[in-house]
Amino acid sequence: MAQKLEGSLLKAYKQDDDPNKMFLAYKVCMTSEGRPWVSSVVRKTRMQIAQDPSLNYEYTPVMGMKSFIQASLNLLFGKNSQVIVENRAGGVQTVGDSGAFQLGAQFLKTWCQNSQIVYIVSSQKEPHGLIFQDMGFTVYEHTFWDSAHLCLDPNMLLDVVEHAPHGCIFVIGSIGNCRLTSIQWTQLMTLMKSKEIFPFFDIPYQGLSTGDLEEDAIFLQYFVSQGFEFFCSQSLSKNFGIYDEGVGTLVVVALNNQLLLRVLSQLTNFARALWLNPPTTGARIITSVLCNPAMQGEWRQSLEGVVENIMMTKEKVKEKLRLLGTPGSWDHITEQKGTHSYLGLNLELLWDSCGSPEMLTLPTIHNSPWARGEQDGTTLGSEMPWLSPAQQVEYLISKKHIYIPKNGRINFTCINSYNIDYITASINEAVCFTKDSEK
Amino acid sequence: MAQKLEGSLLKAYKQDDDPNKMFLAYKVCMTSEGRPWVSSVVRKTRMQIAQDPSLNYEYTPVMGMKSFIQASLNLLFGKNSQVIVENRAGGVQTVGDSGAFQLGAQFLKTWCQNSQIVYIVSSQKEPHGLIFQDMGFTVYEHTFWDSAHLCLDPNMLLDVVEHAPHGCIFVIGSIGNCRLTSIQWTQLMTLMKSKEIFPFFDIPYQGLSTGDLEEDAIFLQYFVSQGFEFFCSQSLSKNFGIYDEGVGTLVVVALNNQLLLRVLSQLTNFARALWLNPPTTGARIITSVLCNPAMQGEWRQSLEGVVENIMMTKEKVKEKLRLLGTPGSWDHITEQKGTHSYLGLNLELLWDSCGSPEMLTLPTIHNSPWARGEQDGTTLGSEMPWLSPAQQVEYLISKKHIYIPKNGRINFTCINSYNIDYITASINEAVCFTKDSEK
Repeated sequence: MAQKLEGSLLKAYKQDDDPNKMFLAYKVCMTSEGRPWVSSVVRKTRMQIAQDPSLNYEYTPVMGMKSFIQASLNLLFGKNSQVIVENRAGGVQTVGDSGAFQLGAQFLKTWCQNSQIVYIVSSQKEPHGLIFQDMGFTVYEHTFWDSAHLCLDPNMLLDVVEHAPHGCIFVIGSIGNCRLTSIQWTQLMTLMKSKEIFPFFDIPYQGLSTGDLEEDAIFLQYFVSQGFEFFCSQSLSKNFGIYDEGVGTLVVVALNNQLLLRVLSQLTNFARALWLNPPTTGARIITSVLCNPAMQGEWRQSLEGVVENIMMTKEKVKEKLRLLGTPGSWDHITEQKGTHSYLGLNLELLWDSCGSPEMLTLPTIHNSPWARGEQDGTTLGSEMPWLSPAQQVEYLISKKHIYIPKNGRINFTCINSYNIDYITASINEAVCFTKDSEK
Repeated sequence: MAQKLEGSLLKAYKQDDDPNKMFLAYKVCMTSEGRPWVSSVVRKTRMQIAQDPSLNYEYTPVMGMKSFIQASLNLLFGKNSQVIVENRAGGVQTVGDSGAFQLGAQFLKTWCQNSQIVYIVSSQKEPHGLIFQDMGFTVYEHTFWDSAHLCLDPNMLLDVVEHAPHGCIFVIGSIGNCRLTSIQWTQLMTLMKSKEIFPFFDIPYQGLSTGDLEEDAIFLQYFVSQGFEFFCSQSLSKNFGIYDEGVGTLVVVALNNQLLLRVLSQLTNFARALWLNPPTTGARIITSVLCNPAMQGEWRQSLEGVVENIMMTKEKVKEKLRLLGTPGSWDHITEQKGTHSYLGLNLELLWDSCGSPEMLTLPTIHNSPWARGEQDGTTLGSEMPWLSPAQQVEYLISKKHIYIPKNGRINFTCINSYNIDYITASINEAVCFTKDSEK
């Protein structure tokens, strides 16, 4: 029997009979009614496609639908960008973003045999990190969430890169949220260049971070302009709301067209063995929208709407915690962008504000049990004299039936007008009373 | 640059500028207008699904849509069959049949490490055999097309099984066409049982062989009743006419439910790394049809219609060759079932009937250059004193622009009222005049 690798939180949630139970860790955007969000253009387009008698449903080429790949690349880099004009960006349509990682990892396993070490952010370990691990790569997790100062810290990333070995692979996800200064960008790229680190970007929901499609992917241009070659998993399923069609792209940027064609030709061979022909429904919907300016405009507006709602929810959560008198500042909630953000349940906050002076003897930030707990995958709470944040999370799960991941990174679109009061009151309880309940 | 492994025939066809060019090696059923066939129920169902506001488009479980898998299993084995009742048949939804072979091969690679030898029929070498080969299995090709007697010969299969090593894997495709006697079935299964050979069945188009869904899969029941455990790639994309949705199933039959659950749990882990969530559009269409008796009836009728057309086409080809006075009997064309059948271009026929007495000195059947050429993947034509069938095929391709595979196995649904005269006249020419054109 195979070990269950993921989804145990969701399983526990499903098995919970409490009427107030809620799950705040969905990967996808939820609507205010608690259903997966679908852009309004998708419904219309789906219907148009079903009614179109001129469409054929023949096998797609192994590489995927050409028009879909081109439209995706244009969206990622801009139609007039350097890589598109120089004809050195290409892509292979994949079955979802897991397919993109599977395909990219197979290529790297075969063709970059001296780069078998992968660095990945903890929250991406499942499922992407596991794909590399299963293939025999050594996978190191890291985080750049500074749980003491309650912010994403670019220096933590720079620190990891500095200590990483020559020629390794770096899976880089939501780095756009990390607010690097231009000096830090230069530092990062200089370090990566000198160490010949291969970047494998992950753009899972372009446009759902800032609401601006171009801004969310602008950092890719920095790497292009510095002469990097890289892979990028581009998934348009979450920002269109097409979750079940397995639509993804493995984007390749090479130094020139000839190198690009060689890489694509090898990737095509791997794709042939994996699934032969990628599925088309999702790709067809996305291409129809992207190639129609009016539809694309409507889609962009729908993304802006989602992001506005997220910011509004975060503001409301912060305000409600303030009104409840919950100890600490909760500014870090509104300072983070995107659907998924750290709630910032942590030790310092709990004890400082609840007036426990012994907490002044806390270990330094990077050695805090929380940070260490996240790095090695365990929580050290039980052996510490004070309560670990995992116990706050535990409190929320077991006493309040609110299911959130151990690191406290939740999907804010899961919070809506029906559950916000219960959630904020529960957070307040967890923060103030965990200590008492333990006594 | 990766070596092109397949599709070179199609590529040559596409690059050919001749107005009469035609391609007779498509994998899918074609309509009389030369377009991929789609069952009439599919169009209706596609529309119904697009209009259904109650459907959600959330991620499917890693194992796939439960209702789809159950409906597929019922179709394959019968709702009241032994394996279904005893709850020891299951499946994982895969991305097409290549996905099913990829998934099954990964399992066998990991869990049956002393069975790393695979036997496969030559016509399935690409792409299924290559999947095993890329994974490090040793792949042996064989054929049971007897090119001298122009028929599928079960004894050739029995012979291969007899000489195969203990514990190997046998990919078994269109064995239903092979007309084994009950004694031969017993022989085959006794041999396989004693050698602990693992069967990996391939059911790429149930119902398109005889027109009867049950009859096309009945041989699986023999293996079930003899206590075999096996895998089966079941693809419903070709018999529905849903080519571009990547819909497939890896079916597992185990000795009991507990073993089944273990295998499925391991397969789920592999699927998680491969694509995480299989695409749903195709599965949804198929499930809607299979779960609605009226729709299923219409679908069954559409299959019968296709098979009737195939038989009619074969009769016409035979009749036209007779009228043209083409040497030889062409009964083998109508004796073969299904969309794909051997045209039977071969040496004996060519020379016997064209009255070349020296051909009586031909080597014995199994040593004919044709049979050998097929086995080792090359044609020996150039070093032989007479013309090889590959030269007949070559004649059809280069002189008549009719693209057919080297082994002469064509898709009869590619022949229609517009091209049948040209095709039969060309075959006649190839059979009678290859010799002259070579002089």
